[in-house]
Amino acid sequence: MFYMDGKLQYPVRVEKPSPLFARALQQAIGGVEGEIRVCLQYMFQAWGCRGPAKYRDMLLNTGTEEIGHIEMLATAVALNLEKAPLSLQEEAAANPVAGAVLNGMNLRHILSSGLAATAEDANGVPFNASHVYGSGNIAADMLANATAESSGRALAVRLHGMTDDPGMKDMLGFLIARDTMHQQQWLAVIEELGGHKAQLPIPNSHPDSAEHARYAYAYFGHDVSGTVPGGRWTEGPSLDGKGTFTSMRSEPLGGEPMLATPPPDSGAQRDQMAGAGVPPTAANDPAQRSKGRPA
Amino acid sequence: MFYMDGKLQYPVRVEKPSPLFARALQQAIGGVEGEIRVCLQYMFQAWGCRGPAKYRDMLLNTGTEEIGHIEMLATAVALNLEKAPLSLQEEAAANPVAGAVLNGMNLRHILSSGLAATAEDANGVPFNASHVYGSGNIAADMLANATAESSGRALAVRLHGMTDDPGMKDMLGFLIARDTMHQQQWLAVIEELGGHKAQLPIPNSHPDSAEHARYAYAYFGHDVSGTVPGGRWTEGPSLDGKGTFTSMRSEPLGGEPMLATPPPDSGAQRDQMAGAGVPPTAANDPAQRSKGRPA
Amino acid sequence: MFYMDGKLQYPVRVEKPSPLFARALQQAIGGVEGEIRVCLQYMFQAWGCRGPAKYRDMLLNTGTEEIGHIEMLATAVALNLEKAPLSLQEEAAANPVAGAVLNGMNLRHILSSGLAATAEDANGVPFNASHVYGSGNIAADMLANATAESSGRALAVRLHGMTDDPGMKDMLGFLIARDTMHQQQWLAVIEELGGHKAQLPIPNSHPDSAEHARYAYAYFGHDVSGTVPGGRWTEGPSLDGKGTFTSMRSEPLGGEPMLATPPPDSGAQRDQMAGAGVPPTAANDPAQRSKGRPA
Amino acid sequence: MFYMDGKLQYPVRVEKPSPLFARALQQAIGGVEGEIRVCLQYMFQAWGCRGPAKYRDMLLNTGTEEIGHIEMLATAVALNLEKAPLSLQEEAAANPVAGAVLNGMNLRHILSSGLAATAEDANGVPFNASHVYGSGNIAADMLANATAESSGRALAVRLHGMTDDPGMKDMLGFLIARDTMHQQQWLAVIEELGGHKAQLPIPNSHPDSAEHARYAYAYFGHDVSGTVPGGRWTEGPSLDGKGTFTSMRSEPLGGEPMLATPPPDSGAQRDQMAGAGVPPTAANDPAQRSKGRPA
Amino acid sequence: MFYMDGKLQYPVRVEKPSPLFARALQQAIGGVEGEIRVCLQYMFQAWGCRGPAKYRDMLLNTGTEEIGHIEMLATAVALNLEKAPLSLQEEAAANPVAGAVLNGMNLRHILSSGLAATAEDANGVPFNASHVYGSGNIAADMLANATAESSGRALAVRLHGMTDDPGMKDMLGFLIARDTMHQQQWLAVIEELGGHKAQLPIPNSHPDSAEHARYAYAYFGHDVSGTVPGGRWTEGPSLDGKGTFTSMRSEPLGGEPMLATPPPDSGAQRDQMAGAGVPPTAANDPAQRSKGRPA
Amino acid sequence: MFYMDGKLQYPVRVEKPSPLFARALQQAIGGVEGEIRVCLQYMFQAWGCRGPAKYRDMLLNTGTEEIGHIEMLATAVALNLEKAPLSLQEEAAANPVAGAVLNGMNLRHILSSGLAATAEDANGVPFNASHVYGSGNIAADMLANATAESSGRALAVRLHGMTDDPGMKDMLGFLIARDTMHQQQWLAVIEELGGHKAQLPIPNSHPDSAEHARYAYAYFGHDVSGTVPGGRWTEGPSLDGKGTFTSMRSEPLGGEPMLATPPPDSGAQRDQMAGAGVPPTAANDPAQRSKGRPA
Repeated sequence: MFYMDGKLQYPVRVEKPSPLFARALQQAIGGVEGEIRVCLQYMFQAWGCRGPAKYRDMLLNTGTEEIGHIEMLATAVALNLEKAPLSLQEEAAANPVAGAVLNGMNLRHILSSGLAATAEDANGVPFNASHVYGSGNIAADMLANATAESSGRALAVRLHGMTDDPGMKDMLGFLIARDTMHQQQWLAVIEELGGHKAQLPIPNSHPDSAEHARYAYAYFGHDVSGTVPGGRWTEGPSLDGKGTFTSMRSEPLGGEPMLATPPPDSGAQRDQMAGAGVPPTAANDPAQRSKGRPA
Repeated sequence: MFYMDGKLQYPVRVEKPSPLFARALQQAIGGVEGEIRVCLQYMFQAWGCRGPAKYRDMLLNTGTEEIGHIEMLATAVALNLEKAPLSLQEEAAANPVAGAVLNGMNLRHILSSGLAATAEDANGVPFNASHVYGSGNIAADMLANATAESSGRALAVRLHGMTDDPGMKDMLGFLIARDTMHQQQWLAVIEELGGHKAQLPIPNSHPDSAEHARYAYAYFGHDVSGTVPGGRWTEGPSLDGKGTFTSMRSEPLGGEPMLATPPPDSGAQRDQMAGAGVPPTAANDPAQRSKGRPA
Repeated sequence: MFYMDGKLQYPVRVEKPSPLFARALQQAIGGVEGEIRVCLQYMFQAWGCRGPAKYRDMLLNTGTEEIGHIEMLATAVALNLEKAPLSLQEEAAANPVAGAVLNGMNLRHILSSGLAATAEDANGVPFNASHVYGSGNIAADMLANATAESSGRALAVRLHGMTDDPGMKDMLGFLIARDTMHQQQWLAVIEELGGHKAQLPIPNSHPDSAEHARYAYAYFGHDVSGTVPGGRWTEGPSLDGKGTFTSMRSEPLGGEPMLATPPPDSGAQRDQMAGAGVPPTAANDPAQRSKGRPA
Repeated sequence: MFYMDGKLQYPVRVEKPSPLFARALQQAIGGVEGEIRVCLQYMFQAWGCRGPAKYRDMLLNTGTEEIGHIEMLATAVALNLEKAPLSLQEEAAANPVAGAVLNGMNLRHILSSGLAATAEDANGVPFNASHVYGSGNIAADMLANATAESSGRALAVRLHGMTDDPGMKDMLGFLIARDTMHQQQWLAVIEELGGHKAQLPIPNSHPDSAEHARYAYAYFGHDVSGTVPGGRWTEGPSLDGKGTFTSMRSEPLGGEPMLATPPPDSGAQRDQMAGAGVPPTAANDPAQRSKGRPA
Repeated sequence: MFYMDGKLQYPVRVEKPSPLFARALQQAIGGVEGEIRVCLQYMFQAWGCRGPAKYRDMLLNTGTEEIGHIEMLATAVALNLEKAPLSLQEEAAANPVAGAVLNGMNLRHILSSGLAATAEDANGVPFNASHVYGSGNIAADMLANATAESSGRALAVRLHGMTDDPGMKDMLGFLIARDTMHQQQWLAVIEELGGHKAQLPIPNSHPDSAEHARYAYAYFGHDVSGTVPGGRWTEGPSLDGKGTFTSMRSEPLGGEPMLATPPPDSGAQRDQMAGAGVPPTAANDPAQRSKGRPA
Repeated sequence: MFYMDGKLQYPVRVEKPSPLFARALQQAIGGVEGEIRVCLQYMFQAWGCRGPAKYRDMLLNTGTEEIGHIEMLATAVALNLEKAPLSLQEEAAANPVAGAVLNGMNLRHILSSGLAATAEDANGVPFNASHVYGSGNIAADMLANATAESSGRALAVRLHGMTDDPGMKDMLGFLIARDTMHQQQWLAVIEELGGHKAQLPIPNSHPDSAEHARYAYAYFGHDVSGTVPGGRWTEGPSLDGKGTFTSMRSEPLGGEPMLATPPPDSGAQRDQMAGAGVPPTAANDPAQRSKGRPA
């Protein structure tokens, strides 16, 4: 169960409202790198967490923190929209270039929300909760969370570079710091559980015999020239300590796939149904599978 | 530029076609943990790769391998759909429980694709390319890729456990092995680049002065009881070697947000507009902001 | 800023786990009538609330309550999934009707989340945040919220009728009661602000002169027979007290729309471009707009 | 069955084509507040209407009117796009500020539709039919419809304020008037059926005994300070006349949720599986659920 | 402007209601092959039609017909849902196989719509209006429409085969016939305008000089073996009469793409920024682009 | 299985980077007319192809070519983004019109991808794989493919007209030529299989007796005036040679639909349930279905 105090986790000040920056900030609210996503992701992982309860608790605390981050950003969007032009005329009056500010706005900030944040990204694409990853596997989830905080921090850094409003820079400086911590806390769980050696491959609970070991530590080259880009992934011990990295040129181990002709009532064309009681057309002749070599 | 040979990377055999398993396999094609996603993700990362060219090459090879994985799975779906019932009657005839097989099917496998795979997940939700992550940051991308392969391998392992068809188990044993390798190859890049110490926080190119250092290594507790779940993330050196993990109870550093009243032409109700030339109603009285304490 | 205590707002017990009911419960989590929607909707309305602060507070309290409802339902889904079959064989062994339970499941509950709730509806369609309505208009928002709680309570009632698990019925009895209250609290705001007379039409801040009064209180009939369904909406005073309801047969007040021929470089076919420097074909002859009367 | 006459319900004139305003108008076509939504919503409610036939008829008439509103707006978009720049050069020639008009356009108006309307909102996000609400409950549907017309009228009013084209203002003046009527006609149905007293709670057909009456009329406070925002919703008779509004501080009535450890084949990590035949790691020790109190 | 008469274009009878068939029918309502799509597609094409007015009229008539098709199918869904089980118990009582009917249902037919059609496909995925194609090019649109009617008729034929309810077969027999006509009417427009010779390539208004003629009539082979599948597309005159089909093995005409290193403030890792004022790591050395040949 | 060579199919040069043109090019990557769509579409059609194998081969070759087209366009986007402004200040310094370039950008090109292409359209809407059409019917698929290449070529032609960068015009000249060929190759399959006469109606494998022949060749007029637009579709032999086109005024062949009252537990209002054990209100009286004629 949850509580609030109506206050902001960190002050949100805007000295020079910028409707364009309001649009940019939306990416941090409803973008795939944004706060709605991590908030729901940590919550759902907590609510479905099976195993040691401390990880549930850890997720729940940070998920709760993230609601407050959405709140800060939504407030920042609303403040950046104050004084936004509401009409083409108003804009034209203030600026000889008709529509310059309106051009860059998310028009839904005027038309739909009345100068407030929406649950969308910087392009106005609504948040889609398929991005709420929770796999039921603690190691996969910790990697997913570190990933989310990495693209999230890249986003916050880019927003920080985009603005020169001191209030916005101050707020983003706080959020960037929190992302620094959040990246590390999820990776710290993997370290606590034994690191790559203990946790890889993910899931580590599946019997090794079920996978074809021959292909488990080889980097496959698909370049027609046969060259393979070398690096840590083509030599040395594998990160799980169970094998040695190699590389090999990928070759087809299977043949051409063969599907049955479609059944009579399946909605195909007659020409596809040779052998299904329908006379073949000329095209429907296996011998015709021409493989001519072009000049 | 790309080429093909029309053969399968690994043999795909189905001994006992199962339309329900065909539905399950769709998750590995068009699900967020599936192969369309990783294929496009590695490709787009490669095509936008800035910096050392070897990483572009590495991504491009594996992206190219993944097209062949979609191909294998699409073939597996088509083979599992052969002999699927096409009508309620047919089903009833074959099975005293009317509709038992049709109940579990993705009906679009009959109605839309004519017994073939679709670009959807196990629930028939089409693949959405917002899951193609490419951040322009090599470390963030490597984590994203390791994440994708972790949930992908969890999926493959679960599919492996779901079926007892020997052909399907064989194919999945190959794909699980490839996921093992792919998890490690992306993490090996981070190791090659110096590991957590060199790469964290992500991005590592942003000046440290821009973030509020005080909050960069502290786990925040949001439990009203004041307890904080302890672990590697609350003590010891931070993973980037720049700080020491601590924990603190989160407190609001900002006050209540204050937004301006809406402008006259903004489409709000009059009651929201006190001071904007519209007479306030009783409700629109700041003094009225009652905060009574309930019994 | 937000806090939690790790406890459930109301007990969640499941006596007879049912994976099918787990799927049904998802509608109350990630469906358009569900709790993620109302949670985010009340939050975003609060964060963008302009005007009397008491409404911001009111929204924020209830938005915070709703996080706990998602938590309860996510817990209920996880408990209903315990003992779910993980394989076709297991299923077949337990039940002579192959796949009966798996048929009805959201397979992502096995394949993606490892027996836990997802941010999706009962069909596995992820929550889409375009459903987070916040108009910047307090009356429109209160109606939107009452609507959400009405379809939400209809959903909860239907779930209550679908199960006979005593624990689930108990939990739903609590949620239904909360929906009862929530419906009324949003409508109570409209009453507090003066009811239909004071608040309609929404927005009430737009000058009446801007709308064509002649068409503002007339029900339009579009039945070719000329009949119009009568009721409160065709007679008596309008609900805003400013007019009298009437009905009229709708007639076209405008003519046929006329668009210009496409410019030369616009990607149209030549046949569409008569008069734009491209010789017309026979079809491109205005005189040819045949309107013959069929036999 | 449906008919048309090829004429517009109301004249659509554009004196000064504005590609930016064409983008804004799209919100009224394919936005969540737009006409495709209400058109389909009233139609689907009519087609699924169970109970008195007059409501089906009423819905069908207005749904049919709304097709004509989409037509008017689509025509308005096409007319606003005439003379839009098709190239960066053309733009640059006409205007010293390179790209000023193209910047603000929905580029799909050039690239995809050839200067015509699309089924999208102002950001180019396609209409998503999950917004077509039809609950099978007449009261819930009437509220949903009044909601749609409220945000719809707010949108139309904002568009009216955004433009100074006389033709566009005239057309919007008609649409605003129709929204005024439509808001009231749906609410008039609720009045005809007895108003809040008779219709609340929605659904009113569920036995009262199924809900926990103790929580049905209480506003819950979730502010850690214990204060609760007071108003009509915290005192006086409830709107359905069955209870009295009160307020209470929300307290957890349930405990911490306890999920089972994951089954062996479920794709979790070994560390999550203590007691499931897998030796626990240090982390997997219930005693370890540390709840230290930070300094 | 539009009208209705409240009657069905063709009778809709259901003798044996089948909730599973109700789910299947949804594909014809809200699926990509369904009637909402063609209805909106023909409407938007008509409303944006530039050029000879007869094509606008032709589109508008058929678009109007399609509304009635949605109506028929929505009615068919509602009738197939009458007597659907509403609870797990009811189901169990009626049928020894617990949940057999509920398993196959779109649960939203119970939970969300109260036994009525939704604007979704057979998997419960809501209709997405990005499928409303209107290109502003009459020939492209006619092909798009013929395509829609082809997959639409395949769907109707498959539904016809799936059911043995005489009423449903009768209704589908009508819809299949309409699809037959609609396929041909769109193709007849192309014939009227001169057929392939006059209309290809689409658009036919672009100057030929702008395309690289050398590649305009050659089928490209991408098989590593060099074989190319031969057919009408590799020999004989092209369909537009302007060239002769040939085939050629595709070869890269360009080199490897070279992107600049990322700018300093762009959120990349330092390792990607050699030459941008950041010291290169070992990995960031062009010489290191290893292309070793694997054993 | 697939291979690559790391080279571009055709050179991609950008002389004057334009972030606005980068946004426009996205339509050709992730738009519904774009290359991800055709790539996946031809691949999935190939992988599900039943019938003569030559068509599978033909599809697979062209699908493989299309991966290289995405690669070219993604490279073009990245090159057009080089030198894009990263901040409001930078922009303001370079250009007196604050934000002119940023206004027109897809801000995710800065914030999310770090100056690289995304899997989105020109509005930033992610590619949705429901556009990957594969019907299992060879003729329907060939039409779908010709459609995709027609809107695709219209798009490429419009992009060609939008830019005056010689490198971009050169690249687009190649892509336009490939679209010319691709349009024709799919239509050539239909010609090879006998053309319209042999292939229509699609599917041609369904027994003619199943459709109501009376309605299979008649154009239906829905204009209330009774006029019908005449053309090739209203007279002459049908394209399949089986009938003669006629036109007729559409008349309702069915009556008004009648749905049952909702069952007691279905979540409807009591007023909808007359005859279901719930006393009717006045409104719930069939006799009340007023059809008054308005003045």
